[in-house]
Amino acid sequence: MLFADIDLLDENLDFRAHQWVGVRDGHIAYVGGAAPEEGEAASFGEVYDGRGKLLMPAFYNAHAHAPMTLLRGYAEDLPLQAWLNDLVFPFEAKITPEDCYWGTLLSCIEMARYGCVGFSDMYYHMEEGARAAIDAGVKMNLSDSLLAFDGEGLDELPVKGSLDRLTRDLQGAADGRIVVDCNVHAEYTSNPRAVADLAAYAKERGLRVQVHVSETRLEHEECKERHGGLTPVRYFESLGLFDCPTTAAHCVWVDDEDIEVLARRGVFVAANPASNMKLGSGFAPVSKMLERGVRVCLGTDGMASNNNHDMMQDLYLLALSAKGAACDPTAISPKQALAAATRTGALSQGREDCGYVGVGARADLCVLDVAGPSWTPMTNPLVNVVYAGHGADVCLTMCDGRVVYRDGQWPLVDAERAKAEVAARTRRIVGEL
Amino acid sequence: MLFADIDLLDENLDFRAHQWVGVRDGHIAYVGGAAPEEGEAASFGEVYDGRGKLLMPAFYNAHAHAPMTLLRGYAEDLPLQAWLNDLVFPFEAKITPEDCYWGTLLSCIEMARYGCVGFSDMYYHMEEGARAAIDAGVKMNLSDSLLAFDGEGLDELPVKGSLDRLTRDLQGAADGRIVVDCNVHAEYTSNPRAVADLAAYAKERGLRVQVHVSETRLEHEECKERHGGLTPVRYFESLGLFDCPTTAAHCVWVDDEDIEVLARRGVFVAANPASNMKLGSGFAPVSKMLERGVRVCLGTDGMASNNNHDMMQDLYLLALSAKGAACDPTAISPKQALAAATRTGALSQGREDCGYVGVGARADLCVLDVAGPSWTPMTNPLVNVVYAGHGADVCLTMCDGRVVYRDGQWPLVDAERAKAEVAARTRRIVGEL
Repeated sequence: MLFADIDLLDENLDFRAHQWVGVRDGHIAYVGGAAPEEGEAASFGEVYDGRGKLLMPAFYNAHAHAPMTLLRGYAEDLPLQAWLNDLVFPFEAKITPEDCYWGTLLSCIEMARYGCVGFSDMYYHMEEGARAAIDAGVKMNLSDSLLAFDGEGLDELPVKGSLDRLTRDLQGAADGRIVVDCNVHAEYTSNPRAVADLAAYAKERGLRVQVHVSETRLEHEECKERHGGLTPVRYFESLGLFDCPTTAAHCVWVDDEDIEVLARRGVFVAANPASNMKLGSGFAPVSKMLERGVRVCLGTDGMASNNNHDMMQDLYLLALSAKGAACDPTAISPKQALAAATRTGALSQGREDCGYVGVGARADLCVLDVAGPSWTPMTNPLVNVVYAGHGADVCLTMCDGRVVYRDGQWPLVDAERAKAEVAARTRRIVGEL
Repeated sequence: MLFADIDLLDENLDFRAHQWVGVRDGHIAYVGGAAPEEGEAASFGEVYDGRGKLLMPAFYNAHAHAPMTLLRGYAEDLPLQAWLNDLVFPFEAKITPEDCYWGTLLSCIEMARYGCVGFSDMYYHMEEGARAAIDAGVKMNLSDSLLAFDGEGLDELPVKGSLDRLTRDLQGAADGRIVVDCNVHAEYTSNPRAVADLAAYAKERGLRVQVHVSETRLEHEECKERHGGLTPVRYFESLGLFDCPTTAAHCVWVDDEDIEVLARRGVFVAANPASNMKLGSGFAPVSKMLERGVRVCLGTDGMASNNNHDMMQDLYLLALSAKGAACDPTAISPKQALAAATRTGALSQGREDCGYVGVGARADLCVLDVAGPSWTPMTNPLVNVVYAGHGADVCLTMCDGRVVYRDGQWPLVDAERAKAEVAARTRRIVGEL
């Protein structure tokens, strides 16, 4: 595809008007202020009229539980423990592998609708999740949760077999779109032996790690009580987990020393502002983390605590909540916020050649229709993207050069069927409860 | 218009499937689970196919500065005082009456796009603002700001002449769509004599009042220093302002005693979560105010601090920020949040017969297309409205029975021209600075 005469946000997220962007073999092969020569232009195929549009890097969702679309609107307005124990866990016990496929597929459809092409996921029945991401044409870092409630080591846990199988069957599947990560659900759902085993397993195989860290004050404080004053960050560091490239989700209650560790060890922090606010967990110290050099990315979390996968809305929320929580309007810049939702998210998934608009990058893009009334005036396009625009302004989403969403259509999947399946499966589960 | 076979949120914001809603002479004349009889059906005119749609009350924006669309994206990432003094005030000094017309018109267009039919506005050149609201077919409670930096009484201030003129020429204009309110900009921009005069003026004429209250900590604390410990709430109460029906915008720093006063005096509080977070002002104690019976409504504020007029996004933000700030997932219910953005907003504007879907109410409605992936499953439609849906899902907005927005079109105004005018006028002003 050749995007002709289109405005864009370049590899530095700087605005450039009237550009031509050529996509070939899944990559961005041309960016320039004039059309490529005729022969080269033809090699890009379809010419896309870019007037009145803004091309920018696609979003990467750094923390999700994709099958939880099934739970959207089901568990509301409850304290966290009641939410989990009385509603979420009983519901999840009824979810079949096939349910996971459809729940994940609807998440992929929703993410693509709002410009997102890749997500990091923690759940179970991950083969089904991967199948959905492959079908939808998007990228997924999947991870099956390590849960160890007694003194078990990794070899004694079912997740070991799952990890062996997932890495054997799915690592790098679909031209690298599928990446298998390791996963420690959380400190309070594991034991030190299992965590250390998993860290060694991941290190040996060069795998990345996903983990929940200090989401709630209770979790943070109880960890210190259990582990001689170690916070979750220091606990995981002491067990070698951060020897592997790690994405730590939430980090709402991290202290200053934790932040130093996260920065020094290059840990990615997936902020989940919507979920943290909705569940009353608090506000992650995003501004302080950015200031100290922590690589902050952005996640939507599960749909029982958000309740949509619109990364552009969460980007707005990331910026607003960072400023609000710090009582400081300079707490985060539009560029920092947008980088968290795009390039840093891609890097958190080990996708070095993704998340920016430049020659040589993977063609993971979205195009925004900026004709809506919220985009005028265009005094500062980047500010408009972060604060004024809407995810619904996305009119085209491309992943590895393939169109996964365009003008109300998802060319690779049957979105109507996915909605109907999720609706029916949710009804079935709710009926069983 | 007869909305046929449509799902809706009724006068209690409860969900009802497969309803018929008939609109005649600007009012809702029929609501039922079956079609009206043939003769009556014909009296409603066009039949609207409601399948796959959700009809709900329109939004009322309880605090705005509509002409500030001109400043969208202009003043960013600065501390409040520098934001005001270095960027906002110099820009505003260049705004002409005609600029105000176009800035307000674009705001009306944007609000209608996202389901909002009425707004309370504080600015200047209010005749021009009213003209824009009339042209756009929406409702406006306009108010020209009282600013009194020395010891002047109301008679010595230019706003007196403006108030006399506005109430004479515009009170109740356009079939009651235009309402003229009194306005005290804030404690720190007025003096007690002028405030007391204005309160008496408003009381005598039965006018409503709009006022900024405790937006920032500095304002709140300095007021106490200046006025023998009186907070802005108690200061205004002592001057008789709350003898008139009042909407107090922001109320971020109000204390427990303030909240008691606001509740006892029936003051409407317009929460502005986006603006308060973006400017780093803090979080209003929304949960506590609701608990104590304060009538909380919702505003978008000006476009230099939000930066869009999407009330549905701000509704999401109201709910999330109330829960986040209180560290309590039960801090606000979906119904409380939605009522703030609809019925309570209408009441804050003195519009008793607006803001709900029921026979006899004004036909101020919006229709949402719920086919998008964020709306599945529909386990709890009200929760989906507050947390999952998007303002962009609004496909029809009706004010007093007239369609002001439908499927990408604004039938009453030339939206393309409004955008072009605002873009050009902003360029002119920025060029002059």
